[in-house]
Amino acid sequence: MKIAIINGPNLNLIGSREPQIYGTQSFEIYLESLRLKHPNVDFAYFQSNVEGELINFLQKCDANGIILNGGGYSHTSVALRDCISSISVPVVEVHISNIAGRESFRHESLLSPVCVGCIFGFGLQGYELALNYFLSQE
Amino acid sequence: MKIAIINGPNLNLIGSREPQIYGTQSFEIYLESLRLKHPNVDFAYFQSNVEGELINFLQKCDANGIILNGGGYSHTSVALRDCISSISVPVVEVHISNIAGRESFRHESLLSPVCVGCIFGFGLQGYELALNYFLSQE
Amino acid sequence: MKIAIINGPNLNLIGSREPQIYGTQSFEIYLESLRLKHPNVDFAYFQSNVEGELINFLQKCDANGIILNGGGYSHTSVALRDCISSISVPVVEVHISNIAGRESFRHESLLSPVCVGCIFGFGLQGYELALNYFLSQE
Amino acid sequence: MKIAIINGPNLNLIGSREPQIYGTQSFEIYLESLRLKHPNVDFAYFQSNVEGELINFLQKCDANGIILNGGGYSHTSVALRDCISSISVPVVEVHISNIAGRESFRHESLLSPVCVGCIFGFGLQGYELALNYFLSQE
Amino acid sequence: MKIAIINGPNLNLIGSREPQIYGTQSFEIYLESLRLKHPNVDFAYFQSNVEGELINFLQKCDANGIILNGGGYSHTSVALRDCISSISVPVVEVHISNIAGRESFRHESLLSPVCVGCIFGFGLQGYELALNYFLSQE
Amino acid sequence: MKIAIINGPNLNLIGSREPQIYGTQSFEIYLESLRLKHPNVDFAYFQSNVEGELINFLQKCDANGIILNGGGYSHTSVALRDCISSISVPVVEVHISNIAGRESFRHESLLSPVCVGCIFGFGLQGYELALNYFLSQE
Amino acid sequence: MKIAIINGPNLNLIGSREPQIYGTQSFEIYLESLRLKHPNVDFAYFQSNVEGELINFLQKCDANGIILNGGGYSHTSVALRDCISSISVPVVEVHISNIAGRESFRHESLLSPVCVGCIFGFGLQGYELALNYFLSQE
Amino acid sequence: MKIAIINGPNLNLIGSREPQIYGTQSFEIYLESLRLKHPNVDFAYFQSNVEGELINFLQKCDANGIILNGGGYSHTSVALRDCISSISVPVVEVHISNIAGRESFRHESLLSPVCVGCIFGFGLQGYELALNYFLSQE
Amino acid sequence: MKIAIINGPNLNLIGSREPQIYGTQSFEIYLESLRLKHPNVDFAYFQSNVEGELINFLQKCDANGIILNGGGYSHTSVALRDCISSISVPVVEVHISNIAGRESFRHESLLSPVCVGCIFGFGLQGYELALNYFLSQE
Amino acid sequence: MKIAIINGPNLNLIGSREPQIYGTQSFEIYLESLRLKHPNVDFAYFQSNVEGELINFLQKCDANGIILNGGGYSHTSVALRDCISSISVPVVEVHISNIAGRESFRHESLLSPVCVGCIFGFGLQGYELALNYFLSQE
Amino acid sequence: MKIAIINGPNLNLIGSREPQIYGTQSFEIYLESLRLKHPNVDFAYFQSNVEGELINFLQKCDANGIILNGGGYSHTSVALRDCISSISVPVVEVHISNIAGRESFRHESLLSPVCVGCIFGFGLQGYELALNYFLSQE
Amino acid sequence: MKIAIINGPNLNLIGSREPQIYGTQSFEIYLESLRLKHPNVDFAYFQSNVEGELINFLQKCDANGIILNGGGYSHTSVALRDCISSISVPVVEVHISNIAGRESFRHESLLSPVCVGCIFGFGLQGYELALNYFLSQE
Repeated sequence: MKIAIINGPNLNLIGSREPQIYGTQSFEIYLESLRLKHPNVDFAYFQSNVEGELINFLQKCDANGIILNGGGYSHTSVALRDCISSISVPVVEVHISNIAGRESFRHESLLSPVCVGCIFGFGLQGYELALNYFLSQE
Repeated sequence: MKIAIINGPNLNLIGSREPQIYGTQSFEIYLESLRLKHPNVDFAYFQSNVEGELINFLQKCDANGIILNGGGYSHTSVALRDCISSISVPVVEVHISNIAGRESFRHESLLSPVCVGCIFGFGLQGYELALNYFLSQE
Repeated sequence: MKIAIINGPNLNLIGSREPQIYGTQSFEIYLESLRLKHPNVDFAYFQSNVEGELINFLQKCDANGIILNGGGYSHTSVALRDCISSISVPVVEVHISNIAGRESFRHESLLSPVCVGCIFGFGLQGYELALNYFLSQE
Repeated sequence: MKIAIINGPNLNLIGSREPQIYGTQSFEIYLESLRLKHPNVDFAYFQSNVEGELINFLQKCDANGIILNGGGYSHTSVALRDCISSISVPVVEVHISNIAGRESFRHESLLSPVCVGCIFGFGLQGYELALNYFLSQE
Repeated sequence: MKIAIINGPNLNLIGSREPQIYGTQSFEIYLESLRLKHPNVDFAYFQSNVEGELINFLQKCDANGIILNGGGYSHTSVALRDCISSISVPVVEVHISNIAGRESFRHESLLSPVCVGCIFGFGLQGYELALNYFLSQE
Repeated sequence: MKIAIINGPNLNLIGSREPQIYGTQSFEIYLESLRLKHPNVDFAYFQSNVEGELINFLQKCDANGIILNGGGYSHTSVALRDCISSISVPVVEVHISNIAGRESFRHESLLSPVCVGCIFGFGLQGYELALNYFLSQE
Repeated sequence: MKIAIINGPNLNLIGSREPQIYGTQSFEIYLESLRLKHPNVDFAYFQSNVEGELINFLQKCDANGIILNGGGYSHTSVALRDCISSISVPVVEVHISNIAGRESFRHESLLSPVCVGCIFGFGLQGYELALNYFLSQE
Repeated sequence: MKIAIINGPNLNLIGSREPQIYGTQSFEIYLESLRLKHPNVDFAYFQSNVEGELINFLQKCDANGIILNGGGYSHTSVALRDCISSISVPVVEVHISNIAGRESFRHESLLSPVCVGCIFGFGLQGYELALNYFLSQE
Repeated sequence: MKIAIINGPNLNLIGSREPQIYGTQSFEIYLESLRLKHPNVDFAYFQSNVEGELINFLQKCDANGIILNGGGYSHTSVALRDCISSISVPVVEVHISNIAGRESFRHESLLSPVCVGCIFGFGLQGYELALNYFLSQE
Repeated sequence: MKIAIINGPNLNLIGSREPQIYGTQSFEIYLESLRLKHPNVDFAYFQSNVEGELINFLQKCDANGIILNGGGYSHTSVALRDCISSISVPVVEVHISNIAGRESFRHESLLSPVCVGCIFGFGLQGYELALNYFLSQE
Repeated sequence: MKIAIINGPNLNLIGSREPQIYGTQSFEIYLESLRLKHPNVDFAYFQSNVEGELINFLQKCDANGIILNGGGYSHTSVALRDCISSISVPVVEVHISNIAGRESFRHESLLSPVCVGCIFGFGLQGYELALNYFLSQE
Repeated sequence: MKIAIINGPNLNLIGSREPQIYGTQSFEIYLESLRLKHPNVDFAYFQSNVEGELINFLQKCDANGIILNGGGYSHTSVALRDCISSISVPVVEVHISNIAGRESFRHESLLSPVCVGCIFGFGLQGYELALNYFLSQE
């Protein structure tokens, strides 16, 4: 099974950025642990701060499932939403923090309605929950 | 580990109710499969159509974690929200359907901001993803 | 033909409650006159002030048609709406007063879109108009 | 008893217009059946696509009751509303479709608050339910 | 000096319509008194319940000033507003009642911004105040 | 003088629930002190987490005055509001916290307009201030 | 007949302030011309930039009628509105410019609903139109 | 090919009305040039200021395509929208000015969602662009 | 104990102003009765129609508690709110009428969130309830 | 004549992406047919999923006219709008689908007010209609 | 160069008022330091809690530039805005705190659109930045 | 002291773009003059039209202070806001024009609440005012 994890803007800073919200573990270390725990999964990882590069990657992604954390673009990007609608690989949306409990402009994600499902608020573990979903679909 | 699963109004009809949205599997059968798969977990299950009975159960619930699908009350009940704030057991919110893609009055759950996290849109499997979260916290 | 009439909160007070809005006739006396006039109809009657009990009754109701006055819950209850969507018996919504001409929070009923049709403002006679509808469908 | 039935814009097309919403029976045939069924009622019928002509007819109408389907003007016409307020003949508002379940701009009728009552969603039969109301008032 | 007075929908009923709001004097009698008091003014008078006929009259009107009471169309008609913008004769807007103190949908007139000025709430005398304005401009 | 104190959902937890907002004193102990201080007052006390049971109690309550803390239902319950309108015993609304300074969905109480008056933000002492009001009316 | 003219904030600058909106004539010169033209009217004049001083003057004003231009306070002052409601002398609201055609925060005057009527957009002549109204009421 | 061009209110004034927005060419001259340029097209032309007459014409129109400029009614008429939905001839919406860049009440046309497509802002040439569309569909 | 009572605009008219809302007792007489009933309390009283004078008084007020009825400024004054935030004396907000049941612009008080608590709708007795609060804090 | 066609995000997928909305023809093939049909037009073509690259291209574009389909950025990008305002080449906005009939967040394009005109809903043919406009301007 | 610094309500308390927001330095001491640092500037200083006195001062102010901190009136005063529009001396708006990051009713200042520019969030130093602007304009 | 100046989309066109709003001086020339005037400051300069490149630069920027003009992204970019929150270098927001006085979608900047302070409307000089702030912090 091939799973792509795609992280949007500022998620390259996870571990140092606002640790009271996002925790202190870097994504690279977390990803490594995920790979060790799931040796049969072929992980692809992509991070970009550029909205259009996220779209480019999504369009060409040939995984069995995509785990997407759109970061700040989740709340503003019709283009990213259109891209998810345009591709056939199923996408699960993940947010590290519980966006419903933060500023009102974070309450709604434009991406949610075109994703399979949403997992919000479980910290980095949210990525593994999304992975669990794809594994169970086999 | 003791986990309580609490289902709100109309979720006793899962399997027969609007199957294009909620699927055709009854919750009882699903719960049985969950118990078989996780023999070390002590499951408590409660369903009620009465808002106040859900509050009564939540107030007295002594589980290690609560998986709550508030059904229609999720979008209207300040009382249920206050109850979750009032207790110390962590609560994970689950919805079977992807509420962000349905009618606008379902887009926002009043319960989300006071839950640990949210899992929406994965069908009945959402309950197991929530369980995975609690298991990983041990 | 079996018809269930279901009245929501405070409708047990009809006849004494705010008579300038709801009139002075009690519902029991009205229902008796309805039974006399329609001897071939098998009427079931249920009233409750508890939202969840209304849902319980609706879920189990095996009538040919349901005449529902949701009272104050009509404007706030997603759970009641979900229940009507979940059952196969057709439901006609009745309100005694013309809700469009009262406070703005009464203008919209969450139940209307999932009912067959709506009859508002004809006093207690609205129930008989709803009955007329079901009789004409035979 | 003299009853006027007034149909607003596009209701002359009933039977051919969007049959999935409005059905396939023409209003003329329906009206004929109504006349046969209620020989003691003196029916007047008026249809116009012109808002002001509807007002003209309403102002001069000397029936015991008016059954009005304002069509699209129901949602936009303060002038039609003012007209209903200005006359003393009671008006019952009818819509063929259940407007609460359609586009949001159809949810509210400006006419409803100044009518005796509202009957929405019962197809052409809604006109007869309105007639039933007037007959019961004798 | 030639002055046109144009009354919109339902204003033909002034004197009998809702007298607690619009008073008991008919417009014809009032207009007669106005003519007697201002013999040097050449009055044209037009009333219609049809929005488009009001537009037709306005387009062809060659008065020195127009006193317009758009009635219910004042709050809904972009077409009437466009017409006032399109002609060169100055228009003063009059309402008999104080629309700011009535239902919220009457608070704003679409016509006001394209009129010279507005006179609201003085009963039939508002027409004479508008006339005073035009006379003072000579 | 007979005074009924009615507490809505989650108010059975006062003293342990979110003490930074609601304080650390349990309602039972507070009520006992109130009884000792006002021996001539006949207190009835009712608490329920079920909206409809609150309505049931209110409908049958024969006190001289009712002190009602609707808890979370205050902000969502048209049914509770209708109930207060339907009964003749005067009701004073109390909230322990200053709801105007909390989340926006708590700023407006649907119950306030149909109560005699409102007392918000004085902790448990608010109940005694309400009692003072009823005592002064003798 | 005694008429009070009350001008609110910045209206002491009329004639020099934004002449493209308010014209070039000072209010003093205009008032003088009004006095000459209406020798039988006893004019009182008051201008203040202080909201509370306008209230003080209004409370003590014993004229037969008040012509009030509340200036910027018209759009924000509940206190001024309450004052007009509290006194028995009738008040006519005047604005020099056509406020409906300016910035949206000027479209609604809080004072309008509690005044007899409104005259907007006729420049300084609006004061005389208001005077005409009072003279006609004798 | 038979093409109907339908112009709504005030479009009979094109050429003289607000030339800074609508230009100085009359529609008749423009239409003549269109006929000369497209001799194989059978043009029908209708203009009315009366909303209902536009509906009457649309209902009976048997062209291959309709080019409709609803003028001010585009922003307010549910009736016109319903009419377009009711007929089978395809309709293209044209506006002479770029309505997105004008007053906010012109930004949304109620007609657009039920038309084939929209052409806004190209002056009179917009009609020919719409014609181009119909010609290309042959 | 020193208590300051501060009344905002138009409250000097209590007793004569809109008696159906505010009653017929003047504040001076009420205050005298309060002084007689509470001889150990040192009352300071201040009333002004000028927003800034209320602020001046509040800034310099050295009482143990302030009972403030901001009148119409309660709904519009950020400056008064900032003043209450700036001082250390606790303030209780009182309104004579039940503002939640009046016009919508009175439903929210900008002052409430920065006051200790709110007492609305008990007539002049509200001031004594506020006093009771301060006395109980000793 | 030199014409630039600029396509925004996801428009590289035209032909395979959501064919029920966007059709099955690829843009490259369509563009080829356009070139064959208009041999005298010098076409430049640019597509990017990156908002800023679209801005870069627009800033440097020296065509006689630009045909721009901003895709999802049309509804969210103030930067793209500012860019169009900043350049002197006229821009025509094209959308393949009729955006007025889709989700509400697609109803308004931020780009429309700063473009010459808008062409929505004609499929790929919209590009040629835009071209027609530029050709007619020669 | 003559510069007037005008401070609105509660700014006389700077240094003691909410120091976590406004700091601990008094404005008098800060102003003294400003005078020492800029001996060639002729400073006028005015502070008032009364909205109308601020207007009075602004109207008569003959400085080369005005630095205005309107305090709480910035968010509510159309009168103050009108005053700034009425005078010819350029005004720079200063706020000590970053109002965009505080309560939503502080996000928009009614004064900003009629000032030269805005400087928010730099503490007392914002006044000197404004001064820098005026000095650079010499 | 090291200061980074970062300009967002279209700000590379300053001097030629809409000169009535942004002036005629190019940013390069202005920057040169700034460097000459402040030889002790080490300026870094970055401009990009790509949102993500601005984020990339901000994340890696090691200046003592950042002066950021986000251009059009200021009003739409949650991602840029998150980036500013994520880094420790203080950021001052600058806009050349007074955004409060332009189109409503420019009134609020998503960046303002996470910046130290805001300087709007002073033309290019706003950058130097921001610099003044950083220099004064040494």
